[in-house]
This record gives sequence, structure tokens and C-alpha cells, in this order.
Amino acid sequence: MRLGIGVVVAGLLLASCSYQGQRPWRPMPVQGATEPSEVIAATTPADWQEVPAEDLLVMDLADNSRIVIQLAPEFAPVHVANIRAFARAGWWNDATIYRVQDNYVAQWGNGDAEVPLPQGVERTPPAEYERPLSGLPSVPSRAPDSYAAETGYANGWPLAWDDLEGTTWLPHCYATVGVGRDLAPDTGTGGELYAVIGHGPRHLDRNIANVGRVVEGMSALSARPRGTGNLGFYQTDRGERPIPIRAIRIAADMPAAQRPRFEYLKTDSAAFGLYLTGRANRGGTFFNRPAGGVDICNAPVPVRRKS
Amino acid sequence: MRLGIGVVVAGLLLASCSYQGQRPWRPMPVQGATEPSEVIAATTPADWQEVPAEDLLVMDLADNSRIVIQLAPEFAPVHVANIRAFARAGWWNDATIYRVQDNYVAQWGNGDAEVPLPQGVERTPPAEYERPLSGLPSVPSRAPDSYAAETGYANGWPLAWDDLEGTTWLPHCYATVGVGRDLAPDTGTGGELYAVIGHGPRHLDRNIANVGRVVEGMSALSARPRGTGNLGFYQTDRGERPIPIRAIRIAADMPAAQRPRFEYLKTDSAAFGLYLTGRANRGGTFFNRPAGGVDICNAPVPVRRKS
Repeated sequence: MRLGIGVVVAGLLLASCSYQGQRPWRPMPVQGATEPSEVIAATTPADWQEVPAEDLLVMDLADNSRIVIQLAPEFAPVHVANIRAFARAGWWNDATIYRVQDNYVAQWGNGDAEVPLPQGVERTPPAEYERPLSGLPSVPSRAPDSYAAETGYANGWPLAWDDLEGTTWLPHCYATVGVGRDLAPDTGTGGELYAVIGHGPRHLDRNIANVGRVVEGMSALSARPRGTGNLGFYQTDRGERPIPIRAIRIAADMPAAQRPRFEYLKTDSAAFGLYLTGRANRGGTFFNRPAGGVDICNAPVPVRRKS
Repeated sequence: MRLGIGVVVAGLLLASCSYQGQRPWRPMPVQGATEPSEVIAATTPADWQEVPAEDLLVMDLADNSRIVIQLAPEFAPVHVANIRAFARAGWWNDATIYRVQDNYVAQWGNGDAEVPLPQGVERTPPAEYERPLSGLPSVPSRAPDSYAAETGYANGWPLAWDDLEGTTWLPHCYATVGVGRDLAPDTGTGGELYAVIGHGPRHLDRNIANVGRVVEGMSALSARPRGTGNLGFYQTDRGERPIPIRAIRIAADMPAAQRPRFEYLKTDSAAFGLYLTGRANRGGTFFNRPAGGVDICNAPVPVRRKS
């Protein structure tokens, strides 16, 4: 067979697509992209999807802070069912925020207190660390990722996925909520939960069940003193006081007039595409140079109060 | 010319290296990598480089918190020179932390107070938003990035770079310190500084002068109440009180016995390579699945107190 232009082309492609130290992606800045806030302002009600009241976990702290979490039953159905059972049993009524570790997590629950598990809680849930990819329509993200072959969005959630293994998972971004667990084979019941309060610790992906995201009140978790104990646990013998929780409820169980309502921007909407372009190409009056790329955690799905 | 295996190979490469929606990188997990803490524990003094006392900015707050920042004169020489001049003139002696925005920044300085600039401060510094790449020996990172063609490390700093444009810059990671500015052409003097307290806002890269990183006392910035004003500014008319700073000094100006000393892990050391592998492949007893990749912000250069 004759060497020819095919081999030359192959060689050029090989040089530009080598897997060792060379990566062909470059940011592709877009000038004059609509700013994300303007994209949101131009949306119509049809662009938004209400969060079911069954999927809202409402945490009221003794200091009158309120934190609201949107649960993701599509990704961790057993752990989310457990969380609803814990809430309905009042299992967290004497719980506390007992761990706050800088650039990592704030964690809450009953900690070391031995509180019997309520009826309806699955004691040994499966490892809901990833789920099958098939059936999820996904909007790709705008740049490579440092942890997964692909990232994107589906049904109002950010995703990372592996098309060879055929699985997908919720990435650990700021405000992501996950299930505290012990060492394998323990997967956690959902009784001890944490929220990310620093740079997204993506190395936890596929090692933990992610169950949702904080949609309101994040600073009631992030603006707390850090524990001086190992891993940020509050050291009561040094006078560090765990933060008391008054009650954690599912919004569907609250009187309708008191129920907080939220909606998220539909990730298959044209508006969401414009939003992603805006997040990847911040310009406006402040930015001199649009980035031309954005990581999955820096383009969170917009969620807002629904009037 | 005959079509042949060369074209077939070119076709296969093209299919795997297309620039539209397909990215050839996949995480490559390493089982049993040495945990980062064990890598650090096994280092010797020769693996570490002391931070010059001229490069340490020591912030003492009225509440007796101390925050220490390592400055990066290689990347923003004029802004860093200004910062030293501000410190030496006691320009910050009545300054405050006046802005804390969740998942973004804490910012400090004299804010709106009209304090005359001291002698020795360059009033209109150049836009030190990136610098030439040449001359910087760099250790590549272990995964693609969502904002730059390449990331890596040199001289103890994380870097992002563009080899076509031939420039490099410090990425905005957690604890990165940057220069507050107004709209272009203003580049900021260095009198108003901020530190990142959330997921690394990489869209600020190349739009702001980054001048260093917090190496101690980060929670004295991150664990603060968030301002309820727009962009997290404290609203004094709502009773939100800016946090008073007592003094900001360069360590070189402090009596030797009082000077804090720090060292960073040399980024061209074998130990640093093992550290990166460990950060990219967390295993130990807790992690079931090493990630096989890590983003530049999740593998910060280790910095520690030097005894």
C-alpha cells in the first residue's frame, strides 16, 4: 500500500489529538453574549418548571434561619425516600449542624447520638452513587471537564457521565447535598447530610449518594464558624457549640399557605442555552475578556422562588 | 493517489478527535495511589521552598484573627509593589472587610472612604492580568480544563495558559487573592483586595490582577456573615457592621522573632508529582473509586508553616 496524503493527514491529526499532554480543546469566546441576568429577565413562565412540594426539604434552625433543599429522587430514590421518612417522623427535631470544614462541607444530623431509626427507613440502602444514562435527554456543557468524559444537564440537574460505562451522576458542586456515610459497604441512610461550602469536591463523585442541592438559605450553612476538630467537627470540650435545628419538614406536609414554592429553568429550553452561553462568555461592562468556556459547577441551573 | 489504510486511520482519528461535542480525554484512575497526606508526611526539607518574608502580607483584625497571604510578584509585580507600599504606609490601619458575597468573595480595604494614596504607589498600574509564558518551567496538570487549553504549575503556583497566545495567568481558585477594580481602563491600585470564598470563579481569569493566595486564616474571611446588599456589600443602614482591620504588614517589616514563616512544596519535585497523583486518585479507606483526574483548583500547591 502506498503511503500518501491519508497518512499525512493521520499524522497531523495524531499530533493534534495525542492523549499525552496535548488536548485539542481551546476556549472559543463569544463577544457580546447576553448576560445571564438578562437572559433570566427575558424568560416567560413556560420556561420554568415548578419543583414538586414532595421534593422540597425545609430546614428551620433554632436561630430562625431557614434552609431549603431540592431533592433529586431521580438520582437517589431510596436515599430520598429515607429522607422524607426521617422528616415525617420528626427524627431531626433535636439534630444539629455539628461539622463545618472550610472549603469543604457543613454537615448535620444526630451525629453520635443513638436515635432509633423510624419506620419506613431502609437501613442499608443501595449505593446510589450513579445511575443508568439511558433515558436522560441531555444538554451538553460548553467545555471539557477535569473528572469526566462528559458533563451536561438534564431535567433541571447538572450531570457528569461516562458513555462507555453508560452511567451518570450528580457532580459535587457548591451547595450540592450529599449523604454522610461510614466506610464501604456503608452507604449512609440519609440521616446525616452535608452541603458543599467550597470549591466543588468532584473527587467525591461516584463515591457518595448525592441527593440534591440547597436552593435557599445557603449562607446559614456557609457562614458558620469552622470546627477546630479534625475534619471540622465542632469540639464541645473547647466550647464550640453545634447549631441546633428546630425542625426539618417536607414542604408537601406544610399548610399550603406556608409552603415555599420554587421553580427551575428548564434545561431543554432555548433560554437555558442562552444562559449557558452567557455564563461561558461573561462580558457586560465589567469583563474585558469573555472566557469562552465554563465548568459545570459555574453554570448552575437557575432556581428561584415561585410566586 | 490510492485510498488506503492512511485514510482509514485518519478517519478514525477524526471521529475520535472531532471538535464538536466530542472530547477524547477520559479519566484514567490509578488504584492504590499514595494519599496526599502520606506523600506530604514523607517529604524532606529539600522538597520545600521558603516563602520570602517580602512576599507575606500579614492581616491582623480587631477581633484578633490573623490572615496571612503569600504574594505573587512574578505575576503582578506593580500591583504587589503597591501592596507593599500600602502596608508600609499603614494605609489599611482603619480598613475593614466590607463585602462578603456567598460562593464568591470577601473583600476589604478602605472602600468608599477617600484616603489619599501614599507615596510610592503607582496610581494607574498596567493590566497585570496575564504574563508571558516563556521562561516558566511548568508541570502539566492531570486533566483538561474548562477555561484554558492547558493548566499546570510552576515555581509553586498553579497556572493556566494559552500556548498560542504565549501567555499564562494565576487561575481564580478558592483562597486566591485578587485586586478589586472599577470598569476598564481601571485596573485597581491594590488598595481594595478580595479573596475567593466559593467555587473558583474562573471567568474572572484574565480580567483581574491576581496577586496571591491566603495561606493561613482563611476562615477569618469565609466564615463571615454575608452582606445583604447587592454583591454582598454590608448594609450599615441595616445594622450590618464591616469587620475592622487593625493592621496589615509585610512580614519582612515585623521583628524577626514575630515573623510567621511559610514554605511551599516545590512544584518541580518528585514529591509534588506524587501529590498530584494522589489528589487525582483519592483512595485510602474512604473512597471506593479513584477519580482519575483533578482540576487545577482541587490540587492546590501545599503551603505550610515553617518551623
